Amino acid sequence: MRIAEVGDLAMLQLPNNKQTIFKLEANREYQTHKGSVHHNDLIGSPWGRIVETHLGASYLFIPPTLHDLLRNTRRSSQIVFPKDIGYILLRLSIGPGTRVLEAGTGSGALTTAFAWMVGDRGRVISYDRRKDMQDLSRQNLERVDLADRVDFFLQDIAEGIDEKDLDAVFLDLPKPELYLSQIHEALANGGVLGTILPTTNQVAAYLSTIEKEDFDSVDVAEILLRFYKPVAERLRPTDRMIAHTGYLIFARRMHT
Amino acid sequence: MRIAEVGDLAMLQLPNNKQTIFKLEANREYQTHKGSVHHNDLIGSPWGRIVETHLGASYLFIPPTLHDLLRNTRRSSQIVFPKDIGYILLRLSIGPGTRVLEAGTGSGALTTAFAWMVGDRGRVISYDRRKDMQDLSRQNLERVDLADRVDFFLQDIAEGIDEKDLDAVFLDLPKPELYLSQIHEALANGGVLGTILPTTNQVAAYLSTIEKEDFDSVDVAEILLRFYKPVAERLRPTDRMIAHTGYLIFARRMHT
Amino acid sequence: MRIAEVGDLAMLQLPNNKQTIFKLEANREYQTHKGSVHHNDLIGSPWGRIVETHLGASYLFIPPTLHDLLRNTRRSSQIVFPKDIGYILLRLSIGPGTRVLEAGTGSGALTTAFAWMVGDRGRVISYDRRKDMQDLSRQNLERVDLADRVDFFLQDIAEGIDEKDLDAVFLDLPKPELYLSQIHEALANGGVLGTILPTTNQVAAYLSTIEKEDFDSVDVAEILLRFYKPVAERLRPTDRMIAHTGYLIFARRMHT
Amino acid sequence: MRIAEVGDLAMLQLPNNKQTIFKLEANREYQTHKGSVHHNDLIGSPWGRIVETHLGASYLFIPPTLHDLLRNTRRSSQIVFPKDIGYILLRLSIGPGTRVLEAGTGSGALTTAFAWMVGDRGRVISYDRRKDMQDLSRQNLERVDLADRVDFFLQDIAEGIDEKDLDAVFLDLPKPELYLSQIHEALANGGVLGTILPTTNQVAAYLSTIEKEDFDSVDVAEILLRFYKPVAERLRPTDRMIAHTGYLIFARRMHT
Repeated sequence: MRIAEVGDLAMLQLPNNKQTIFKLEANREYQTHKGSVHHNDLIGSPWGRIVETHLGASYLFIPPTLHDLLRNTRRSSQIVFPKDIGYILLRLSIGPGTRVLEAGTGSGALTTAFAWMVGDRGRVISYDRRKDMQDLSRQNLERVDLADRVDFFLQDIAEGIDEKDLDAVFLDLPKPELYLSQIHEALANGGVLGTILPTTNQVAAYLSTIEKEDFDSVDVAEILLRFYKPVAERLRPTDRMIAHTGYLIFARRMHT
Repeated sequence: MRIAEVGDLAMLQLPNNKQTIFKLEANREYQTHKGSVHHNDLIGSPWGRIVETHLGASYLFIPPTLHDLLRNTRRSSQIVFPKDIGYILLRLSIGPGTRVLEAGTGSGALTTAFAWMVGDRGRVISYDRRKDMQDLSRQNLERVDLADRVDFFLQDIAEGIDEKDLDAVFLDLPKPELYLSQIHEALANGGVLGTILPTTNQVAAYLSTIEKEDFDSVDVAEILLRFYKPVAERLRPTDRMIAHTGYLIFARRMHT
Repeated sequence: MRIAEVGDLAMLQLPNNKQTIFKLEANREYQTHKGSVHHNDLIGSPWGRIVETHLGASYLFIPPTLHDLLRNTRRSSQIVFPKDIGYILLRLSIGPGTRVLEAGTGSGALTTAFAWMVGDRGRVISYDRRKDMQDLSRQNLERVDLADRVDFFLQDIAEGIDEKDLDAVFLDLPKPELYLSQIHEALANGGVLGTILPTTNQVAAYLSTIEKEDFDSVDVAEILLRFYKPVAERLRPTDRMIAHTGYLIFARRMHT
Repeated sequence: MRIAEVGDLAMLQLPNNKQTIFKLEANREYQTHKGSVHHNDLIGSPWGRIVETHLGASYLFIPPTLHDLLRNTRRSSQIVFPKDIGYILLRLSIGPGTRVLEAGTGSGALTTAFAWMVGDRGRVISYDRRKDMQDLSRQNLERVDLADRVDFFLQDIAEGIDEKDLDAVFLDLPKPELYLSQIHEALANGGVLGTILPTTNQVAAYLSTIEKEDFDSVDVAEILLRFYKPVAERLRPTDRMIAHTGYLIFARRMHT
């Protein structure tokens, strides 16, 4: 039986899927939207039970998954969505030990997923030129105990990238075509470059440039995620869904 | 500059995205659909270059990504597709050190992704009652040097699961509702159970059972992946796409 | 140049696509959400111009299309959506002169489309057992001057259908499988039966029955409509979309 | 009971949905892929029965719907697909009596749907500059007895459109933005202009022009149609689907 301990990340979840994540600390109280719970009542108790607030609201008490952490990233900008992140991980071949660079950092959802997957022997290098964004991202990473796997640089990659021989690079920038020579310098030959872009015009502009640069195997995709109402006798999709987050473009850096 | 070495997995890719993956060994010849290449000409040479076969066909020579490995899984059954695997990894919170169980093993695509992500300190436990399937899966895992992270059991999980306190479980079986008590025994309280099912009837049958068992936060989703022709001046989706692979169902094991 | 006349249906549309439809009558005032316009200022003026309310709001003044009429159906229940109606028209082979039956009437969106397309030599027969629904539908049809093409019956089709030899039948009922013998009686041999059902369970139940009855060529489909933001330099889908309205099932009545 | 008569369009359909359409004529033989049937055995017999070829293959004998006619349009170019045509009909407000213009004619699938819906008091005007295309389209319309509702012009609309005050116009041309002044002349004020374009670049180019011309309420959409295997106990989408046909753009002609 698994027991919640001081320092663990904990999640309280309502039946409607509303979630809240926090760290367990002795002698504290946590305020939900529906009343408070005492950390001391959670610490030392088993995961997976129903917890009641002082107002009588019932929450499921569970450890957050990576998916939960990503959904609950505090944001001041559009984040990369989990449906896209899962696919990006496979395409960029992220795993224990990978050295991956991203620009820009943004609110840190993708940074979190990268840091999670590269493990303590991998490395995430994250460039952003906006201090407010990077500070938010760093806080998000610290909150989930993954900040020590990330090197944050408050710098525009247009000014160059110090790292060399990176396994993979991901760009979440409006005009990624402007940085292809810097990426080519930093990314290992044969490595993967991923990009996310919200508009078709940006994709077209990017494609017209990357085709001329030393990148190959260019690939464009979009992912749609449709949820169903999980009711056995009335199984059907939900009424509404996210129609668009961004187009994902992948390419391989050639040796030249 | 990265150099291909003996023992590395190598991939040759045509402009139309056709791929072939093999391991580099001294003094061997590799037969593509368009002529042969000598391993010795590849070993010691940089990744990311164009390689010509003896018949003059041009291939891009690159290290396969995890995505490439999954796409090229040798199969005798339907595999779990990369679009679904990426999302499953996030939902099941797979990462370095995770102990995850799957049943059945199938051809081993999901097994490969799990083994990749859990690293050398994690563990994949894979049950299948069909020897031919598990042998194929083991060969697939050996081919990509990940078999040592997997414990294969030629056994029906109906007969019970030896492991306890698992971080996550994934079921790719026609009637997952039959095994919920065994899963409840093996999965840590608060852990995640994932399932893939091809038909709506199976999803309905599963939901009607899991709602009564000690699982919570049940969630059903499907993922659609749409590729675009990567042509800057004529950007548009491809003509056809995969319309369906399976419905993904996730749930949390409660403490009881 | 086309001029708006007394008795015409008129539409006022805002740049954000918000629409309002009404009939032009002499000496009246129309109240929009953003101020009023005088009918007399619209009557005798050309369609397609910008009209200002007394509060200075600008509306495009145009005749409503069939699509506009359907979108603006007053409803007390879920209506059949335009994306589905267009396809239903083709599958049921509706056109000038067609005799089509629907049950239930609902709020009358599909009734409106049928009445529009069958012309003054066709006929729409509409059964509903709920008086409030049928009254609403009749009002909707009267509002758009199409009620004289529809025969409304306040009756459950379980009690039988008076008409024979119908060209097509459409069912928007929770358990259409209960009425297949009545439909078989009323529908011409070779005619088309269409159905809309919101859940997969209903589709499965319907399929299991219709396969045993004298219907053939059964076909199930769903339609997804995705809008784009119509901005030349930033072309991209809207953020959200309708994920589900219903499954459409079509079949041909056999001769027996 | 409905009886097939000389001159009727007839369809033979296999269980796998393969269809063939022909006109019933006395004393003829029809050759299917699986043997022949005699017209005389079909004429005077009821619709909706199973017919056997001389080789013993079983076909369902039914009158084709509009949807069947569209699917079976003989083509030498990409046709507009039924999923899109249904929606176009609603957006362009096509119905009995409508006068609608299309350019280019193409293989005639959309022409067929328009001719069907406008009835004998409406009119379809169809421009194409390619004689081979228009001849094919005319043959397709003659085959389904709808050619007398269509005026074919072998002419580029760049040279001007003779008709005025049209209810609706639909363009299926690579660069519709080149013809907006001609359309503006020909289309009634307040009328609807529809367009289909396969690439995002074309949509962007069109939007950038139409925004400056006297058109309003511009709207871009795409439609996805997903079929299900119609099996009660194993309900699920088909494995593959059409991923893209074209983007649909609609606009209203302003009065100026």
